[in-house]
Amino acid sequence: MKIVASDTGGAVLDEEYNPLGLIATAAVYVEKPYITAKKSIVKYGDPFDYDLSGRKAIKDEVLLAIQLARETKADVIHLDSTLGGLPLRQLDKPTIEALRISERGKRIWLELGKELQPIAKKFWEETGVEILTIGKESTIVRIAEIFAGIYSAKWGIEYAMKKGHVRIGLPRYMEVKILSDKILGKSLDPKEGGLYGELPINFDEKLNWELYPNPVARTFMVLEITSRR
Amino acid sequence: MKIVASDTGGAVLDEEYNPLGLIATAAVYVEKPYITAKKSIVKYGDPFDYDLSGRKAIKDEVLLAIQLARETKADVIHLDSTLGGLPLRQLDKPTIEALRISERGKRIWLELGKELQPIAKKFWEETGVEILTIGKESTIVRIAEIFAGIYSAKWGIEYAMKKGHVRIGLPRYMEVKILSDKILGKSLDPKEGGLYGELPINFDEKLNWELYPNPVARTFMVLEITSRR
Amino acid sequence: MKIVASDTGGAVLDEEYNPLGLIATAAVYVEKPYITAKKSIVKYGDPFDYDLSGRKAIKDEVLLAIQLARETKADVIHLDSTLGGLPLRQLDKPTIEALRISERGKRIWLELGKELQPIAKKFWEETGVEILTIGKESTIVRIAEIFAGIYSAKWGIEYAMKKGHVRIGLPRYMEVKILSDKILGKSLDPKEGGLYGELPINFDEKLNWELYPNPVARTFMVLEITSRR
Repeated sequence: MKIVASDTGGAVLDEEYNPLGLIATAAVYVEKPYITAKKSIVKYGDPFDYDLSGRKAIKDEVLLAIQLARETKADVIHLDSTLGGLPLRQLDKPTIEALRISERGKRIWLELGKELQPIAKKFWEETGVEILTIGKESTIVRIAEIFAGIYSAKWGIEYAMKKGHVRIGLPRYMEVKILSDKILGKSLDPKEGGLYGELPINFDEKLNWELYPNPVARTFMVLEITSRR
Repeated sequence: MKIVASDTGGAVLDEEYNPLGLIATAAVYVEKPYITAKKSIVKYGDPFDYDLSGRKAIKDEVLLAIQLARETKADVIHLDSTLGGLPLRQLDKPTIEALRISERGKRIWLELGKELQPIAKKFWEETGVEILTIGKESTIVRIAEIFAGIYSAKWGIEYAMKKGHVRIGLPRYMEVKILSDKILGKSLDPKEGGLYGELPINFDEKLNWELYPNPVARTFMVLEITSRR
Repeated sequence: MKIVASDTGGAVLDEEYNPLGLIATAAVYVEKPYITAKKSIVKYGDPFDYDLSGRKAIKDEVLLAIQLARETKADVIHLDSTLGGLPLRQLDKPTIEALRISERGKRIWLELGKELQPIAKKFWEETGVEILTIGKESTIVRIAEIFAGIYSAKWGIEYAMKKGHVRIGLPRYMEVKILSDKILGKSLDPKEGGLYGELPINFDEKLNWELYPNPVARTFMVLEITSRR
C-alpha cells in the first residue's frame, strides 16, 4: 500500500510555554516499511494569527493530502480526524449527525463537510482513492505529525534569523536535531517502531538551539532557537 | 509468588493489514524477577476460521492456564479479563450482573461463566489456586501476550514454508527477531521494565523475514515471512 | 520560569506486592532545561500507619512546596492535583462545587480547601506566587514523583539496615540504582525526554538490592533491599 497522510503541528510558545498558534501542515507519502516519508510537502500557517477552532487546519490537511496523492499516485489518504474511519466522501449531513462524537465536533464537521465532502467525492470518482478519517490509529498520520514538527523547526530557524529568538512547542513526544545539512526528527515513543523524518537545510552557524521538556505539558518537547549575532 | 498467566494474540493480516483471526493462545509460568517465562505452552487456533466473539479464546486461556499451573505447582493464575480482579470461581450469575462492565461483556460472561466457573471452583477446591480476572494490570499477562506473539511467529515460519508467504500482526508494541536457533520477542515499551521471551527453533535459511510498523494500527508491528524457493 | 512542585510516592509492599502505605512526599525546585531538580526536600510518612484517603498527602505536598518556594524564590508552584489548573487560592466552596470532578473528590477538596485555600491566599498576597492544580500534565510534578521514589529508596536502605528486609513499590515507570555514593532515579518513559534525579548517600555494602517489575502492577517497578548480616 502507498499511503498519503497529513497533519498539523508545531506551535509558537509564549514565555510561559503556552501555545499561541500552529505553524505547519505537512503531507507525507509513505511506502513499506512505513517508518519515514519518501516525499513530503508543507503549508505554513501564521502562528501569530491562528484559527483556533481547527477548521482551517483540517481544510488545509485535506487539500494538501489530495495534492500530494495526485503527484505520487497513492492508493489511499489518511486524515488526522477520528470519525469512525469513514471515507470523507460519505460524510453527508445525516451521517455526521449519527456519529458518536461531541456536539462541538458535529457542528465543526457539519460546516466543514459541506465544503470538503464534494471535493473528496470528486477526487474519489476521478481516482478511486479514498480519504479515510482514521486519525491517530494511523502510523502514517503520526509520520505526518513528525514532519509537521520538522517543518516547524525549519520555520523556526528562518524566524530566529530575522527576529533573533523563538520558542517552538513540537508535536507530542518527538525530538528534533538541527545538523549542518539537515533537520532530523524522531519519535520518542519506541512503541511506534522507530518513526523518523529528515529534511535538508543549510544551517546557519550563527544560531544556537536547545531542546528540552515543556514544563507545563509533559511528554512535549520545546525547541528554542536564538541568534548569536 | 509463582504465577501462571495466559493470553491470546498474533493475527494473520490481509493485504490491507486488517486481522483475519488470531493465531496462538499461550500460557506462561513466571517466577521472580518476573521478566520472562521459565516455561510456556501453546494452543494454536485456526486464524482462517476464527470465533471473533472472543468466547473460544477465553475458554482456551482458562484451560491452558490450569494445565500449566498443575504442572508447575503455581500459586495463582492471572487471566487476561478485567472483571475487577475477582476470582473466576466467584463469577456466578448475580456477581456477573452486578459488575460494572458493558452489557455485551455481561452476556458473554453469563454464558462463559456457566461453563468456566465450576471448573475454577473445582480447581480451587483441589489446589487452593485462585484464577484472578486481573487483566492488563498484570505483568504476567503481558509476558503471556509476548509469548503469544513469539508462538505466532513460529506458526508463521511453518505456514510460509508450506504456502510461501504470510503477514502476521504481532500483539501490541512488541518485536520479534528470528535467529538461526531461536525466536526472540521483546516488549517495545521500556515502561514495562524489560519483558521478553525466547523460543528454540531451527530456522530454515530459505525464508526471508521483515519487521515493520502496521500502517493502520499505530504501535503494532507486522512480521512478514516469505519463502525464497 | 523557576518552578517548585511536590508529589507523594513510593509504597511499602506486602508479600503479594500490594501497597500498605506511602513513604515520601518530595518537593523539588526546577529550572530550565527542566529535566532534574536543583534542590529537593522530603517529608517522610509512616507507611505502616497511613491515611489512605490522600488528605494528609495533599496537605503535606502544599506545605512542603510553599517551604521550598520560599527558600528558592520560585515563580510558581505546581501541585499534583488536577482541578482544571486553577490556583489553589481560588478554591472556595462555590468554585469546588462547580468543578467537573468526582463527588468523592469534591468532598475531599471541600474539607481540604477550608484549610489550604487561606494558606495559599496568604502566600500569594505576600509573594505573588500561584499554587496551580495542574496535576500530571506538569513535567515538574513528574520530577517530584521521581524524587519521591528516590527518597523512598533512601528510606528503604535505612529500614533494611534496621529490620533486615523491605520491598518498596516505586512510583510509576521509574527505576532506581543504588550506587556507593548516590541513588540515581530515572524515568522509564522516553516520551518524557530524559527526566532523572540524584541523591547523595553512603551505601552500606552489607545490603543487597534488586529491581524488577511488579507482577500485579504493570509498568511499576519493585525495589527489594535485604541485609546480608
